Amino acid sequence: MSEGRSDIVVMKFGGTSVAGAAEVKRAARRIVAAREAGSRVVAVLSARGKTTDELVAQALEISERPDSREMDMLLSTGERISCALCAMAIHDMGHKAISLTGSQAGIVTDSSHTRARIIDVRADRIRDKLGEDRIVLVAGFQGVSTESRDVTTLGRGGSDTTAVALAAALGASVCEIYTDVAGVFSADPRIVPGARKLAMASYEEMLEMSASGAKVLQLRSVEYARNHGVRIHCRSSFEDGPGTLVVAEEEAKKETVEQPFVTAVTHSDGEARVTLTGVRDEPGVAGQIFTALAEAGVNVDVIIQNEPVGGNELADLSFTVDRSDLTTATETIAGLGGVSKGVRTDERIGKVSIVGAGMRSHPGVAAKVFEVLGGEGINIEMISTSPIKISCVISAGRVPDAVQALHRAFDLGANAVRPEDPTGAAHRPTVSG
Amino acid sequence: MSEGRSDIVVMKFGGTSVAGAAEVKRAARRIVAAREAGSRVVAVLSARGKTTDELVAQALEISERPDSREMDMLLSTGERISCALCAMAIHDMGHKAISLTGSQAGIVTDSSHTRARIIDVRADRIRDKLGEDRIVLVAGFQGVSTESRDVTTLGRGGSDTTAVALAAALGASVCEIYTDVAGVFSADPRIVPGARKLAMASYEEMLEMSASGAKVLQLRSVEYARNHGVRIHCRSSFEDGPGTLVVAEEEAKKETVEQPFVTAVTHSDGEARVTLTGVRDEPGVAGQIFTALAEAGVNVDVIIQNEPVGGNELADLSFTVDRSDLTTATETIAGLGGVSKGVRTDERIGKVSIVGAGMRSHPGVAAKVFEVLGGEGINIEMISTSPIKISCVISAGRVPDAVQALHRAFDLGANAVRPEDPTGAAHRPTVSG
Repeated sequence: MSEGRSDIVVMKFGGTSVAGAAEVKRAARRIVAAREAGSRVVAVLSARGKTTDELVAQALEISERPDSREMDMLLSTGERISCALCAMAIHDMGHKAISLTGSQAGIVTDSSHTRARIIDVRADRIRDKLGEDRIVLVAGFQGVSTESRDVTTLGRGGSDTTAVALAAALGASVCEIYTDVAGVFSADPRIVPGARKLAMASYEEMLEMSASGAKVLQLRSVEYARNHGVRIHCRSSFEDGPGTLVVAEEEAKKETVEQPFVTAVTHSDGEARVTLTGVRDEPGVAGQIFTALAEAGVNVDVIIQNEPVGGNELADLSFTVDRSDLTTATETIAGLGGVSKGVRTDERIGKVSIVGAGMRSHPGVAAKVFEVLGGEGINIEMISTSPIKISCVISAGRVPDAVQALHRAFDLGANAVRPEDPTGAAHRPTVSG
Repeated sequence: MSEGRSDIVVMKFGGTSVAGAAEVKRAARRIVAAREAGSRVVAVLSARGKTTDELVAQALEISERPDSREMDMLLSTGERISCALCAMAIHDMGHKAISLTGSQAGIVTDSSHTRARIIDVRADRIRDKLGEDRIVLVAGFQGVSTESRDVTTLGRGGSDTTAVALAAALGASVCEIYTDVAGVFSADPRIVPGARKLAMASYEEMLEMSASGAKVLQLRSVEYARNHGVRIHCRSSFEDGPGTLVVAEEEAKKETVEQPFVTAVTHSDGEARVTLTGVRDEPGVAGQIFTALAEAGVNVDVIIQNEPVGGNELADLSFTVDRSDLTTATETIAGLGGVSKGVRTDERIGKVSIVGAGMRSHPGVAAKVFEVLGGEGINIEMISTSPIKISCVISAGRVPDAVQALHRAFDLGANAVRPEDPTGAAHRPTVSG
């Protein structure tokens, strides 16, 4: 997709970027500016500010467990409102616009209401409208199910996926994701004021960052972008200047003289741990547990099993889940009946991760992470690694300290001398182990 | 349609009937009760309470003259929200429901955005869902344009028309319109506390009442019902008991021993009068004026032209319009240039009307109206009649007095002895002239 750049640009504006009339007009001006600069523009909009939360509240006032098909019918209205209003603003600026629902835009999904997956993008109507010199506004987060022609939604953050899917289908030169932050940072600037805005990140790095707590881009949209080669540009809708480009590793490498081996520190403090004590140590038990959790829609993150020691044949099994899934997780385990002697939970669990494509060729990074956290007196309770990520489960209360210490130790700050700086080698942190 | 009564009932709930969670649940209980009583139910819902007004306000914050296609995309969300919420409530009551947008329900319209007309109802999907033993909830007020597949809306009050159109297409036994009033009254009970709830009204009477100020039913929905023979039952969503049945004159007559010759007094105090002085008295001038007004979307109600007297060849032309159309009307007249010497407007204009199918055979009613109003010292400024209606344009400030006097003089009250009462003849008001 990045070859032979087309003149189509997909721009996506999140809820804060269309929250009030002033924000809608600002988004409209950005869209018009892109059109006037010569691009054909498709803009994907989220629901305004707190609209989705308010609609959810209305549903919960009516029903404790709202029907999911009807939930989708309800929630999909928020993005349509944003698109209609933005189209009005663009008309007033002298351009032709048209808003399309997810269904009208050809976003075809499966029938998994409230968390549907896109299975096809039939963008003919968008192409027709672009051909009529219109700016096309598409309601994000939603589609239409292929079987029953019902309105579906893609789950929270699904508008990013809508934008990336449209960019892929239309062969757009770039998918610009506008939010209230200026890009992807080397750490959360609220915790590390000196965090650096990354000029580039590879899909793989961004996937690990999204999975380990970075909230800028929804995980699924990054996967979709990687699979279809869609270049993402994360940027601020409130300031000008470039944000962070998320591209294939080869393109990211070209731009960097020498790749830093650690790119960012991410964190999450909304996790919970479940520990099953005295789990029957026989084949299939773990499979039974995690299959049941998956079927209940619980995303399990880090897992450790302590092998039985001595004559005892019972093991302990711990795993972490999103804190909002804790009740479902414990209910699911209870429903299995007798897989373990006991169940303990800990809701004060956080996670800190370092991510970087360069870690592949720098095997000592893990040891340095443990050393840094140990030096801060932070106890590492669980560890999970990938070739380009190391995550440590720690006490939620120590997360800010851990993020700051790792950011400093790996020299990731805005004022740090970067590895690509010719003199930078001397400043690179020592890797032990 | 009233022959061979089907087991399908269409129920329509207005904005106040779904305003809060409690109201949505109350509507859901009514719907479920009808289903449990053996009917297959299609319910048409309006937007909740002030939702449409709030959406309009959001649009006006963005644009002074919002694009009408986008306005429809925006406004159509309100009814979808109501339907999704009501479906959730019905599910919780143990019944299967499904909400459909106007488009999904097969409401096909022309492309006149914000005031589209229904040109076809393709109710296959509704029939399929009824066949699956589902209660079908349809978003009122909206459809899909046949040419461009865009969301359209039918104009304010359009949900009544949606309900009647579906009742016609499905051959429903009745179309129940639930509102916050108990039915159609012999006068506005806020002005005449002793007003009587009508058990029945003919389509023709209801048309005249809707056209002359009764707000219970939208005019267009009554026309549609008459043209397709749909029986309408106007009733309260907050109390039980029958409301007012609006049916063909033959059916209405069957139920009444002797038809009262006046059925109701209606009024409107939101009118304005435009007087063109010194209009060129030549063929085509009036046509030119009223064609221009029609093209500008101004509904002209009562018209009088004073013929030139003496040697003067210039006439005066007066007409009334809805007060909200006054600016458009005067601008339109000004745009014609030189059709009259001057333009005067009066915004303090009201109208009082009496309506009754029995007036056809009682030619003295008009004289009695003038006598009653004269007796109250109320000046009649313009008059307009039909075979079953007499309207008098009067000062807006005298409207309540006029309504009360006419209601009393024609003996329309709840405690009055009705003509169908065997002893009633003696109580019938004297008809003079």
